[in-house]
Amino acid sequence: MSKKPAVTSVPIDSTIAGRWSGRAYDASKPVTREQTIALLEAARWAPSCYGDQPWRFIVWDKNKDAAAWQKAFDTLVEFNQGWVKNSPLLILVAADTKFHHNGKPNPFAAYDAGAAAENLCLQATASGLMAHQMAGFDAGKLRDAFAIPEQIEIIAMVAVGYAADPATLEGEVKEGELAARSRRELGELFFDSAWGKPIV
Amino acid sequence: MSKKPAVTSVPIDSTIAGRWSGRAYDASKPVTREQTIALLEAARWAPSCYGDQPWRFIVWDKNKDAAAWQKAFDTLVEFNQGWVKNSPLLILVAADTKFHHNGKPNPFAAYDAGAAAENLCLQATASGLMAHQMAGFDAGKLRDAFAIPEQIEIIAMVAVGYAADPATLEGEVKEGELAARSRRELGELFFDSAWGKPIV
Repeated sequence: MSKKPAVTSVPIDSTIAGRWSGRAYDASKPVTREQTIALLEAARWAPSCYGDQPWRFIVWDKNKDAAAWQKAFDTLVEFNQGWVKNSPLLILVAADTKFHHNGKPNPFAAYDAGAAAENLCLQATASGLMAHQMAGFDAGKLRDAFAIPEQIEIIAMVAVGYAADPATLEGEVKEGELAARSRRELGELFFDSAWGKPIV
Repeated sequence: MSKKPAVTSVPIDSTIAGRWSGRAYDASKPVTREQTIALLEAARWAPSCYGDQPWRFIVWDKNKDAAAWQKAFDTLVEFNQGWVKNSPLLILVAADTKFHHNGKPNPFAAYDAGAAAENLCLQATASGLMAHQMAGFDAGKLRDAFAIPEQIEIIAMVAVGYAADPATLEGEVKEGELAARSRRELGELFFDSAWGKPIV
């Protein structure tokens, strides 16, 4: 579980506050099959436009199929490989760009996939795990390596595992891990009745 | 709190399982200011690419500024107006299509906004409220009515309030409210090591 809960002006759900995208993973602790299924069940019950469930996830478990995990890992940029190497699970978040019921373009595919991925990250927190999403990977290489259809938008990779001591990291990754978390002021992004009018 | 929790094959976080997009709202129970801020704090702490926080929300509270709420409500399609009329809060989910740090297009704007909106919906559940997202509204009309800049992508509207007895609804809306919830089979959307290989 994260030791860097969000600092909020009023109390919020402890799982939401506890979710944190850390980079120090414990390579010695596998994620169990039941934990993996719980992550996916959480994603599965996210809401979606027309109930389309446009998300598609691929799970690579290093302790179950090391060769497939390695093939997915090889598509990450070097910076991410430096810390993801200790993460037992890698998960692709993708989305069908067309609606299931009529084959027309689904303008909410990425938006809905974002909700499903967030549920997965929150379930990781609830299960005592940590999840960290990444954009730093070669989507074309991943598409080729796993024969992912063109109709599917490749969006993000997620590292999942048990958190380790940040001291196991080095350099700027370690510095980032130890830095305080921050967000823009609430009133900068959340408005009251009118565009641009701060809620607080 | 929802009385229709998700049916899952393994236990998941109770807030994620309890989130449900119902349509029966209790017009007599306002959402408090502290509850509203909790919804926004939850959204605020969602993860985002480069920590950009591309989401922008406008909150319309019927019990605080009825005229502004009405102006937002008037952009909804007739079907949604039929049940949203009892929802004390209306919230717009929008996203900045350009990165804050360099002004370049942000391909993750909608995806990240989806995560923030899901956090909001989950916090609603955690606070004993219910939230329901909608695509059925006139985005152009909303943009004009509230002078929302072109750079901002208008994505979804969310109704938030206390759940009421489904008997307060009528016709197909009532039928939908009483129907069992469903999702596609886990293995149809979640794959194991390879594209299309069911996880279970």
